[in-house]
Formats: sequence, structure tokens, C-alpha cells
Amino acid sequence: MNSFGRLFRIHIFGESHGESVGISIDGCPAGLPLKVEDFLTDIERRKGGTQKGTTPRQESDLPIFKSGIFNDTTTGAPITILFENNNTRSGDYQKQRAVPRPGHADFVAHQKFGGYEDYRGGGHFSGRLTVALVAAGVIAKKLLAYSGVEVVANILEIGGESDLEKGLQKAIDAKDSIGGIVECRVNGLPAGLGEPFFDSAESLISHAVFAIPAVRGIEFGTGFAAARMFGSGHNDAIADMSGRTATNHAGGVVGGISNGNGLVFRIAIKPTSSTPKIQQTLNWETGETESFSVKGRHDLCIALRVPVVLEAVTAFVLCDLMLAEQKIKRIL
Amino acid sequence: MNSFGRLFRIHIFGESHGESVGISIDGCPAGLPLKVEDFLTDIERRKGGTQKGTTPRQESDLPIFKSGIFNDTTTGAPITILFENNNTRSGDYQKQRAVPRPGHADFVAHQKFGGYEDYRGGGHFSGRLTVALVAAGVIAKKLLAYSGVEVVANILEIGGESDLEKGLQKAIDAKDSIGGIVECRVNGLPAGLGEPFFDSAESLISHAVFAIPAVRGIEFGTGFAAARMFGSGHNDAIADMSGRTATNHAGGVVGGISNGNGLVFRIAIKPTSSTPKIQQTLNWETGETESFSVKGRHDLCIALRVPVVLEAVTAFVLCDLMLAEQKIKRIL
Amino acid sequence: MNSFGRLFRIHIFGESHGESVGISIDGCPAGLPLKVEDFLTDIERRKGGTQKGTTPRQESDLPIFKSGIFNDTTTGAPITILFENNNTRSGDYQKQRAVPRPGHADFVAHQKFGGYEDYRGGGHFSGRLTVALVAAGVIAKKLLAYSGVEVVANILEIGGESDLEKGLQKAIDAKDSIGGIVECRVNGLPAGLGEPFFDSAESLISHAVFAIPAVRGIEFGTGFAAARMFGSGHNDAIADMSGRTATNHAGGVVGGISNGNGLVFRIAIKPTSSTPKIQQTLNWETGETESFSVKGRHDLCIALRVPVVLEAVTAFVLCDLMLAEQKIKRIL
Amino acid sequence: MNSFGRLFRIHIFGESHGESVGISIDGCPAGLPLKVEDFLTDIERRKGGTQKGTTPRQESDLPIFKSGIFNDTTTGAPITILFENNNTRSGDYQKQRAVPRPGHADFVAHQKFGGYEDYRGGGHFSGRLTVALVAAGVIAKKLLAYSGVEVVANILEIGGESDLEKGLQKAIDAKDSIGGIVECRVNGLPAGLGEPFFDSAESLISHAVFAIPAVRGIEFGTGFAAARMFGSGHNDAIADMSGRTATNHAGGVVGGISNGNGLVFRIAIKPTSSTPKIQQTLNWETGETESFSVKGRHDLCIALRVPVVLEAVTAFVLCDLMLAEQKIKRIL
Repeated sequence: MNSFGRLFRIHIFGESHGESVGISIDGCPAGLPLKVEDFLTDIERRKGGTQKGTTPRQESDLPIFKSGIFNDTTTGAPITILFENNNTRSGDYQKQRAVPRPGHADFVAHQKFGGYEDYRGGGHFSGRLTVALVAAGVIAKKLLAYSGVEVVANILEIGGESDLEKGLQKAIDAKDSIGGIVECRVNGLPAGLGEPFFDSAESLISHAVFAIPAVRGIEFGTGFAAARMFGSGHNDAIADMSGRTATNHAGGVVGGISNGNGLVFRIAIKPTSSTPKIQQTLNWETGETESFSVKGRHDLCIALRVPVVLEAVTAFVLCDLMLAEQKIKRIL
Repeated sequence: MNSFGRLFRIHIFGESHGESVGISIDGCPAGLPLKVEDFLTDIERRKGGTQKGTTPRQESDLPIFKSGIFNDTTTGAPITILFENNNTRSGDYQKQRAVPRPGHADFVAHQKFGGYEDYRGGGHFSGRLTVALVAAGVIAKKLLAYSGVEVVANILEIGGESDLEKGLQKAIDAKDSIGGIVECRVNGLPAGLGEPFFDSAESLISHAVFAIPAVRGIEFGTGFAAARMFGSGHNDAIADMSGRTATNHAGGVVGGISNGNGLVFRIAIKPTSSTPKIQQTLNWETGETESFSVKGRHDLCIALRVPVVLEAVTAFVLCDLMLAEQKIKRIL
Repeated sequence: MNSFGRLFRIHIFGESHGESVGISIDGCPAGLPLKVEDFLTDIERRKGGTQKGTTPRQESDLPIFKSGIFNDTTTGAPITILFENNNTRSGDYQKQRAVPRPGHADFVAHQKFGGYEDYRGGGHFSGRLTVALVAAGVIAKKLLAYSGVEVVANILEIGGESDLEKGLQKAIDAKDSIGGIVECRVNGLPAGLGEPFFDSAESLISHAVFAIPAVRGIEFGTGFAAARMFGSGHNDAIADMSGRTATNHAGGVVGGISNGNGLVFRIAIKPTSSTPKIQQTLNWETGETESFSVKGRHDLCIALRVPVVLEAVTAFVLCDLMLAEQKIKRIL
Repeated sequence: MNSFGRLFRIHIFGESHGESVGISIDGCPAGLPLKVEDFLTDIERRKGGTQKGTTPRQESDLPIFKSGIFNDTTTGAPITILFENNNTRSGDYQKQRAVPRPGHADFVAHQKFGGYEDYRGGGHFSGRLTVALVAAGVIAKKLLAYSGVEVVANILEIGGESDLEKGLQKAIDAKDSIGGIVECRVNGLPAGLGEPFFDSAESLISHAVFAIPAVRGIEFGTGFAAARMFGSGHNDAIADMSGRTATNHAGGVVGGISNGNGLVFRIAIKPTSSTPKIQQTLNWETGETESFSVKGRHDLCIALRVPVVLEAVTAFVLCDLMLAEQKIKRIL
């Protein structure tokens, strides 16, 4: 379903070229101050419009509060936020319906929803919906900040280059799109969050993270490199009574539970499916393979837009876990 | 919580050195034939007792059916299966209580449960509970087989070596434990499983996979390598009307939805925390760092036991998704 | 939380005097035709504006589709519907904030949300939100009709009178508000819906029904009268192989499971809390008891508006149960 | 499914004539002292074996702790409790398989589970499973007692008689079974529990209560009688700053939220379906109506056993709500 969370619960809806996209957040404690201004920085970060490599499509993207906020403060009731879709050119997509775009959800959406799906610009599968995630993330991060927890994500590499300009230039030179790696770090997280087995901190975070389009992998702490280490090298020795460890190969989670050290994880972002290169795909009507070339406005490197979305979904999960452990009060 | 799933729902319980570990499975269709014999192969696979590098602890590990099975067939009611803990030596652990084992959940369990946790052998956090997961996996895999879906996991590498013997020998030579990588492949999966955003196939699978102790990362299809690819190289062109793609960089999931090709993902397993090497840790009573050496019986490479557990949790998720899409009947 | 359902899931939001109220419906199969016109009859039924005894407040109350509908058909994505609040006079309520209205949620909302709640006209607790329930009910009922299931609710009595005019006149004469009893009947329901114990059909229906403001009780079949019967008189003998029973004291549910006979239950609606009578209540600022007289626009008998809301929540539950038993397809 | 609760979550399993019945409780805070002795009184209350009108079947019914308890204290891990079925005479039922007992789940179970159900003594639908509910209730009530909340249920009437002996005698004289009404009162409950709409206190309580076999109705406070009252008579005026009301027609819940006054509700219990009277039912094999006479051991009035079960399910819900509002700590 399009919901996530147990105590801090979000519900997402909308389509790329429909009227609007939006999100409703249930379980946010009452008493959190909240204004449109709080959202602007993160919404701007997501746009990536001024960065080389990101799409020129520019929504005004002002959050429209529909419920749950009164006198610039959360009320404890569900908070619903809409973003209108003003800047859509559906004609770009409609004529290409018979040609499912490689790497996109066009084919699977058609299989799953029997042809009734809104196919314009990816419809409900569109990255456009991440603006709603970002809005919920603003609230979640503000709530966490209240308890001394800070969530920060950064791009580690683009196309294998830690010099991001260089990585992007690769794509520009190749007239192709390119992928990247994004890292998230959380400071100030108390020990004890998460459950053994199914609701481990990693389980919940990865669940939320794979909701972000284009994510292909996640690793915590040393991650895949741990598979090549010896145990004596990987184990983090506890250094003091607070649980601080000298090294942090665990990335802040042991046995599924936060251990009070910094939470660290990384995600892999695939290259944007809409590459400027000519590709082969199937025409459903003719049943023939044909050449396909993306029109419309698209990012060369979608990873550039991901950090703020990654912060958002991570923050949801942490709010939920903090509420469950009573580390955030129900009324602020 | 210790539950997972929406329509095919499992609930796990038990402790390493308590009376028993077990699992209850809710939502399994009625009419599935089920006998103790169905479980023996997978339980044996999990033991790894005859493999170099796995612990000599040998439970008899016969599943004890407590509910939900009648006349060797599932009834539609919750299926509860217990495994008794016969072969425990609690004395190994009790005297070391003041010394949280590096890499284990001892410290976080103490923080989370205030010292009331069953600390013997990891208690509820123990890998012992994976025998219960395996039992549920037997049922889930049998159910999937009914619909032509097959789940198979294999070890790809140990300590960075695809020659597994060589990898293990590294650990034996170093008198240390070592990690590995396990791959899961699912054949016969229909297109259309999973939901956009929060219940994407990757979200649900990774959620379940991180319930397996020692998992540090997961990647689908080309995974982390996709972050260094161009879009034209990563996109899988659709080759025919069934959705078959020539390449499978996507690993069988696009837009969070299965696309009818083989589902492929890999997980990273950290080296066993209980290494034979002497390590430093903190003594909670004295507040001093001290040397620590693992007694008891432990695996050099826990990854050796993981494939059957990985098949199990993957199979849960797929049963759930198949039921939601009505690809498995409620009565067989 | 403000959500309900497992496979057919609704999420409600909004406040009486905020910008809007709305609902998002997740899990509705793709392919259901849906137009604004489909909603008008039920929205009109809920208004009760032309009936003696109901409030003169008249919203235009046209459903605004925000997501999930494309080409007048459901797409399988979440369906979000808003209703704007045009006709509000907040001044009515603001000055009375210090005086919690007897029978209303003013006091408990203040306790629960620490004074941050939107107190205008009951805020998120307002009966205004039932318009959103009704809208979701239109969809649920249309979906059920597709499978031959019909949900119909009627008022049985007002103020103890089965002649409803007479009951209302009682209230008018007494210059007071009055309660009533509403019955719901479902025809065409297949046998086998519901689960033993926690998700019995009665459990799920009553859960949803008590979401309707002013409901004080629910009884199935013979209900409270069954407590005074002998077993031989209460048992419904099965009359033929389809499970039809000659009598229907069970109201169509045995052992928590629908038995294929008509589902029948009744609910008790308390008298409207906002009575024209002068009442005593506490002034929070002065700490003194004071006289209180309701201004604003209110119903004499809220039960008059309930049938269409009762049909709605019943229909949600049945859609959910029908989907679980695969009696409704995922794609129509 | 066979689970209930969000933070204090129970999962029930087992069959009347299977190996055992049991329950697993997830989310119980760590640090609650718990011994077998704590369970004996309530298990005895449920048996009703010494009361006129209850069945002579006597299980020893000692709770067997399978997980989650260590050193006579809860650990924070799932608590699993089994009850063995020693005293079963399956022969009573097996030969009557073709004759679904009127009022019992035999027919619906067959419809729902396609004939694979364990039909012996009602199988998973049996009232035998309430012993597991009672066990979980012991834990929930002890947890509530920690916070000053007390849950007490009593029989109000049997067969319409408040003199219970008289009511029972009616049934004995008529050689028939008979129903009754049970009331539950909760003292010490804080204000603010429950949510507007779908998770109202009444919604959650009624959901849990209808899990008890034979319940046919529930009403809060004045309940069905409220439908015949005027608003001025039904409203409870707030008498002081703590929210105390002089009257308690609301039964302690307003707007779905506890208001700090005593919680009061009543439930209707139908007459035991297994009456000694000869009845008509259908023989599935012959397709003919035939006379049917209950053998086996059965209660004349199942209501006599209900109070302790009603306390149990009410206590689950309240634990869940108290945890959500952080009125019970995660570690005691």
C-alpha cells in the first residue's frame, strides 16, 4: 500500500500529470511549529534545477496545507499537504503510450493495473511524488531536531567519481545519463531503537529507502566490504559506558538496534532511465522492436536530487522508532 | 514487533537458551500437504554442522507442530511450530554477563530492555531463531511451488573468494572469522507483484532480509555497480510481449514491481562476531577495558548457513505479494 | 490512527473549519468507472438539509478528485477526494473556547492534544468529516455492487418511535435534541468472510461503525434480545445446502464468519450533543460552572443523517473482506 | 488475521482438540514480574466448572511459558504461553461431521476452509481458545495495575434475570441453554486515550470484544437507551477541572477518547449454541434435514464464563492505548 509507519505514519498519493501530488502524515505530535517557510530550502534542494545534470522542469512547488495545522502549529490531527502540478506537458507522453520506456515502470504498471493506469509521465510511479516525501521529511526532521537528532545525506560519488563535477562531465560527454552513491548520516540518535528480527532498524530504514525511485542497493556501516573482512577487524570494541565504539563498522546498528553511535548507510542510485541516447524497445501495438529516443525534460543524474529525499524517508523511520521508545513526547 | 506480512503473516518468538524457539504463521491457505519430512532437508541445510567453518552445536531440531495442521494438511488456521532447545550450555554465557561481546547485541539489548533481557547466548537476538524462519520458509516455498515459483539462494563468495574452500581456509589460517556474499534467485515469478513506493518489492524483501542476523547490505540486479553505469548500458530493453528483457540489470524489479524476469539480489554477510581472536571490550562492572576471548561453539563463517534462511524470508514476502495479487488461491 | 483497512484502506483528514476535509482510498481495484455524478445522491442523503430536524448548514459539497482517477476510471493508485469548507462561521466557536460543550469532544481533545487542537466547530472531531466517509462509501458500494452485494441502511426509530415524524415532533416540542436507531442490511454477501477471533466480521464492522460520531452501541441479528433467549429459540437451523437458514437470529454471522444469509445489524445513535436547551458546564478560565446555550446551526436528530454514513463504513469493511477472500478481482 | 494490537500485540493459535492452544504477546514492557501463580485465579474463574450451568470438562490448564520470561520477569521479547489439551474426546465430534451444529461455526468453517478445517470440537473456532486470551489478560491487567488502572467485569443478568440463580434455573427447568449480559467497568483510566474516528476507544474495544465467541452486541455508557433520550438528559456536564462529570451517560468515552471518568460498557451473550434440546439441522451427506441432539459436555450458560475473558480483551486494548499515549513505560 502507499502508507508507511506505525506511530508516525505517512500516506502518499498523486500522479505526475494529474491535478496534484500530496501526502498525509498521521501521528505527528501536537505543538510543533510549522510554516510554509520551513519547507522552502528542502523543496529547493530537491529541484536540483540549478545544478548541471538536472531537469529544467520547474514547479513552483509551494506546499499547500490542507489539514492538521492551526495557528502555524501541528494540532495532532493528520497533516495533509498538497503540491499542485502546474507545469506539465502531457502531450510529450500520450503519443508514446505504445512504447514502454526502458527502465521505467510503464510496462509493469500496465501489467499490474490492466491498462487503467495513468500513464502520463509515469503517473503514480513518477519521481514527482518525491516532493511530497520531502515535505513530510521537513516535518520529521524538525521533530527529530527537537530531540537532538540530525539527519544529513550527501552524494559520495557520481559515475564512480568522488569529484562530482568530473562524474557529471562523463555523462555529458557520453550524451548519456549516469548513476551515483548517496550516504546518510544520523547524529544524536539514542541507543535502543529498533526491534530484533522483523522491525530491525535496518529493516525499517531499507523498507523506506527502497520507496525512493532508482535505488538499487543499501548498505549499513562497512556494508558489502564487511563480507571480505575478518571478524576481529570488523567488530567495534565498546570504549566506554555510554556504548561509544572506537571504530564504527557497524554503522550504528547492532542486532537490529541502534547502539548510540552515528548511524551510517549508503545507497546506490541507478543512472536515470530517461537517457538522451537512442535505445531499442518494444512497440506494444506493432509487436516490433523499435528505436526509442526520450523527449521531454529529464535529469542526467537523478542521484543529484536524492539526498534530501533520503533524509526525508530516514527521518520518518526514526520518528516512528523514537515515538515507540517514548523518546519523543506525544505533545511537545 | 516480531511479526511480518500482511496476508501471509509470521510471528517469531523464543530465546537461544530458553525452552524453545518457534514461529506462528497466519494466512497460509488451507489444503497444503505438510509433514515433518518436508522440513528435514532445509533444517539440515541450516545446520551447516558438517561443513568446515560451522559450529559443532547440533540440535536435533525436529519441528513440533502445535496448531494449524490436521491430517497432514494445513487447515487455514495459524500454524505454530516449535523447536526445543536441548543442547544448551548456559554456563558459557552467564559468567561473562558483565562483558558485552563485541559485534553482538549484548550491549544494545541491555540498553533497550533495561537489564531484564535474557542474556544467555544472545537470548531473543540469537541466530538460533533462524531455525524457526527456516521452518516457515519450508511452508512458504511449498506454497510458491504450487504456483510455479522457485526460490534458490547460493553463496557467491567467502572472504572475497568465489572458491569457497579457499575463502574458508583464509579464516582458518588467520584463526579468525570471515564474511561472505549470498545471492538469491527467483524463477517463475509473475509480473505485477509489489506496490509503488512504500511496498515496493525491494522494500518488502529488504525489510525481511535485514531480519536475518549479520546482514549488512542488499542490492538488486546490478546493484551498487549500477551507480557507475550509464543509463544506456543499464536499461533492459523489453524483447517481447511477455516483458522478457535481453539483459536483467534490473534484477526483475522495475518501479518497485516485478517485471516477469528472474528476481535477483545479493546480500552481504559480516564475519561472525564471535571470532576465536582475542579482542578488547568493556567490563560493565569495572568500567575498564579488558581482553575478551570467545568460548562456546561458534561458526567461522556464518554466511555458510545463510542461503536457506534467505530463501525462507524471501519466500514469505513473495507469498504475501502473490496472495495480494490473487496469484495464490485461499483454498488450494 | 486515522486509517482503516488492510486491502481496501482509507485514510481520513481535515477539520470542520479548516480549508477542507478529505479522504484517500488505497487498494481500490483498477477499472472502476467513477464520476462526480456518482457521488451526488449520497452526499445529498447525508446533508439531511431538507429534513425537519437537520441543520440548515449547506455546503456545496462537490467531491474534488485529487488523485487515482483517470479518464473517469480508477487507476489502482490511491484515490484522494477533497471537500472544501466554504460555509464556515468560526466566530461562532472561538469566543466559547473556555467553555467545553457538554457531550462534545472539546474537553478530551484539549486533554489529548494539549491545547494545540483546532477547536473551531470540533475541529478534526467534527461530524463534517463524515462527508469524506460518504464519498469513500460511494466507491466501496459501487465496487460491491459489481459483485452482487448491496448495502442498505434505514432509520428504525427516532426517540423510541418507529413513526419518525412523531419522534421528531417530540424533540421539537421539548425544544431538545433526540436520538435514534439505525439498521443496516446487506444482501448478496457470500459465505466465508471474516476470520475467527480478532478479525471476525463483527469485530471489523463494529470497529468501523464506532468511527461514526454519536454511535453508542451495536448489535448483530437478534442482538441484546438474544441475551434473554433460550438456545433452541436462538439457533438458526440450516435449511439447505447453500447454508440458508429459516430464521436469521445470527444476523448473517456465525463464529465471526458470514454465513451467506443477509447481514443485519443495528446501531444506537445518541441525541445530538448540541441541544437548544440551556445546560450547565465548566468555564476553564474561571473554574466556575456556568450556563451554556448552543448557538450555531445544529441538527435536532443526528440519526437522520447516519444511514448513508453507516452504509459507507460497512461497505469499506466488506470490500476489504471480499478482497481478502478473492471475491473481488484486483483489476475489474 | 489472528492478531490484534499495535504496540501491545497478541497472536492467538490452536484448536480445541489439537495438541494445544496458545498465545504470543509482543510489546509487553520488560521488567514485569510474572509467575505461574499469577494466572491461577483467572484460569479458575474462566473454568466455571463449579458453577451450576457450566460444562464439567476440566483441563488442568497450567500455563506453560515458552518464551519471553526469564528469572520470573518479562524480558521485552515476545511472551508465548501454551495450554495443553489433555482432556479431549474427539470421538464425540468425528461421527457428526456431516451434521453442522446449529449456531456453531461448523458450516462457515467448511465454506471458508474448503473442508480442510479441523472440525473436532469447533477446531480453531472453539471457546477453548479463550483460555489463551485469559492468560494474556492476566499480563495486561498486571501491567495496567502498575499504572493504577483496574478492569472488572461482572454478569448483570442471566436470561433476563438480575438474580442469576433464578435465570439459570429457568434454563435448567426448560432443559435448554440461556444467554446473559456482562458489564465491564474500568477505573483509574486517564483521559486522552483513543483516536478520533477509526481508532476510537469504542472502535478498538468493540473490535476486541467481538473476538469473544457468543457476543452479539456491545453498548457504551447508556448505550441503546440513549437512542430514546433527549440531549439535555444525555449530556454529562463537566463538574470540575479534572473533567469529572456528575452523570456518566457517556460511559467514559466522548468523541472516541477516554474522558477520565469510569469506562463502562455492556455486552450481550447469546445462549450457548449447544443446547440439550433436540434441534433440526441439515445432513450434508444426505442433503436431508434431520434431528440433532448435542452430546458431549457443554455449558448451559456460556455467559457465566465470559467476565474474565471480557476483562482480558479489554485490558489488551487499554495496554495498547496507554503505551501509545506513553502512560506506561517501555521498561518498568
